[in-house]
Amino acid sequence: MDQFKILYRDSKSKARAGILSTPHGSIETPVFMPVGTQGTIKTLTSDEVNDLGFRIILGNTYHLFLRPGLETIKKAGGLQKFMSWRHSILTDSGGYQVFSLATRCKMTEKGVEFSSYVDGTKCELSPETTTSFQLDIGSDVAMCLDVCPPFPSLKCDAKDSMERTWRWAKRCKETYQDWLVEKFPDKEQPRPLLFGITQGASFPDLRRDSAKQTAQIDFPGYSIGGLGLGEPRKLTWELLEASLEPLPLSAPHYLMGFGTPEDIWEGVERGVDMFDCVLPTRNGRSGQAFVSAGRINISNADFKEDFSTLDPSCECACCRNYSRSYLCHLFRAGELLAPRLLTLHNLHFMISLLRKIRLSIIQGSFLQEKKKYLDGLCEKEKIYS
Amino acid sequence: MDQFKILYRDSKSKARAGILSTPHGSIETPVFMPVGTQGTIKTLTSDEVNDLGFRIILGNTYHLFLRPGLETIKKAGGLQKFMSWRHSILTDSGGYQVFSLATRCKMTEKGVEFSSYVDGTKCELSPETTTSFQLDIGSDVAMCLDVCPPFPSLKCDAKDSMERTWRWAKRCKETYQDWLVEKFPDKEQPRPLLFGITQGASFPDLRRDSAKQTAQIDFPGYSIGGLGLGEPRKLTWELLEASLEPLPLSAPHYLMGFGTPEDIWEGVERGVDMFDCVLPTRNGRSGQAFVSAGRINISNADFKEDFSTLDPSCECACCRNYSRSYLCHLFRAGELLAPRLLTLHNLHFMISLLRKIRLSIIQGSFLQEKKKYLDGLCEKEKIYS
Repeated sequence: MDQFKILYRDSKSKARAGILSTPHGSIETPVFMPVGTQGTIKTLTSDEVNDLGFRIILGNTYHLFLRPGLETIKKAGGLQKFMSWRHSILTDSGGYQVFSLATRCKMTEKGVEFSSYVDGTKCELSPETTTSFQLDIGSDVAMCLDVCPPFPSLKCDAKDSMERTWRWAKRCKETYQDWLVEKFPDKEQPRPLLFGITQGASFPDLRRDSAKQTAQIDFPGYSIGGLGLGEPRKLTWELLEASLEPLPLSAPHYLMGFGTPEDIWEGVERGVDMFDCVLPTRNGRSGQAFVSAGRINISNADFKEDFSTLDPSCECACCRNYSRSYLCHLFRAGELLAPRLLTLHNLHFMISLLRKIRLSIIQGSFLQEKKKYLDGLCEKEKIYS
Repeated sequence: MDQFKILYRDSKSKARAGILSTPHGSIETPVFMPVGTQGTIKTLTSDEVNDLGFRIILGNTYHLFLRPGLETIKKAGGLQKFMSWRHSILTDSGGYQVFSLATRCKMTEKGVEFSSYVDGTKCELSPETTTSFQLDIGSDVAMCLDVCPPFPSLKCDAKDSMERTWRWAKRCKETYQDWLVEKFPDKEQPRPLLFGITQGASFPDLRRDSAKQTAQIDFPGYSIGGLGLGEPRKLTWELLEASLEPLPLSAPHYLMGFGTPEDIWEGVERGVDMFDCVLPTRNGRSGQAFVSAGRINISNADFKEDFSTLDPSCECACCRNYSRSYLCHLFRAGELLAPRLLTLHNLHFMISLLRKIRLSIIQGSFLQEKKKYLDGLCEKEKIYS
């Protein structure tokens, strides 16, 4: 069965609105996925994430592989049951985290060796193990193991990484197909998906080559990796376009690690369907709130006696109940309720934004709405930091 | 009007069940009050505390006085509005915290001088200022400023402290009466209450004298302070009995800072109506959960693959959704959801316990229920730490 259906296409841009089906339900796209690194969207219960309206979240293979580990999650009946989440989960492959976070990391053609940050033991991730790990814990959308070069990179290094990513992608797909035959033989039901990842660093021609090669392997979806690593945003969008161009239009496109409101508008315009980012949750924990005019830091002294809500147009449980003054007090007093309330608010902000974007695609007003939104930010640029 | 009504008395002990009325509603006694030091029950929203069934919480004058301070709370419309809490608040006088936490603390007959931990400025609390601060921020049950000697203390020091506490109590009451005349003239409505605090350290005769003297000033309620400071529990109960004996039976009795299940049974048996303690919340944040058989520390490796709930008989949102294994994972991973879920569970445990105690008084089975409860703990002593 076709698990991704595009329902509306914008006539003036590449934006599209669709439905992605997984073993744990359907997801309206474009979608923003909150990051639940260690099997929890930090500070929130699964019920709260559900009540906010999210139907897919992200889990990090690197962290879950090390703690609590495959055996515990399998005994719990899968990651969904373990964390009491009824809907879909997308998992990354762990590659990015291994390269950026792990110590004593050593890569060969076989895979990656590294030391566990939990207990120092030597661990290995290969295209085969990361694919089966993701599928075995109950991932609905799994990722191929990729090699993500830093920015800037030499072109020869970028090419090597891209080619290894492509060779690994073929091994991931083999593991995936064997797993499906054994565990999910029924082709009429939504099955877990494996996305190929395109790389190519900051070189448009490599981006195009990587996407072409990856598309030839034929995946049910494609991720654009290795962007947002410090390159200027103008280049980001040029590289994104180069990556997207060779990919099948009918497949879902996932731009990894992007999640500011501006980035989401830009990505959707170019044909991206899926986004994830730690920003709304991580920045929420440090006091930064998304508001219609941009972002504010609530621990700022300006808010000590500001008895209005974070965002007057917001209907989240934080804004329904608490003032900026109270939130400012909580942050200054180091209270644990503070990161929780701002996480809730920021995720409510994100899901409202994605609903607005999707509706504008359906109504044929995407570019107008995008302009209106970005103009709204610029007018009040001084509070946008 | 009489704001405290005793509805049932146990015939075989001094336990009683009553109703305490305040400007923000009625409270069934015996009652356990969760501690909201800085204007929040740590990790929980006011809605959650309400949904758990609590109708009175505690705020700490010392902390609130320093941050956010009187002016901010007044501008917010009072502490209830500031923290979005609809029900009653009991505040302590700040005395205990000043003596135990503050630096450069200097006491005279006038009051206490100390340095603010927020910005180092010199602050003062006197019987007059602490009383009017509590009433001005909207406290429903305010406390007199007292002097709480450490354990052990010399008898002469204990006597000095007790006598100063008594002289200060008279000044607090004067402030309170003036405040009522000005701000709450209507005697037919529930008005904020000011409780006298009895001291007397570890000397039963001083305890009796202090209670007698304090009762002579005539307060609408009485607190028993200065217990649980390290003295053996047998002595605690002897001193509590000495403190309670001279107090009017018709007034509410509040045992400050006690809140283990065992302590609550013992206190209620002796005629205590109100309790507060940081234990269920503070210990919850460090992984300790109250369960019917005692207490467990959920981060213990024993629970890594225990897929049962914290307490099989519990119906709280934590136990309805999450396993011990998941909670153990959250604690080990340092996730902020962990302290939140255990705080919720422990407070649910406490309110269920208090309901059980109150019902047993009404049904005339208090002592049997107490025995049953404590026997249940002892049987499984090995997991009770």
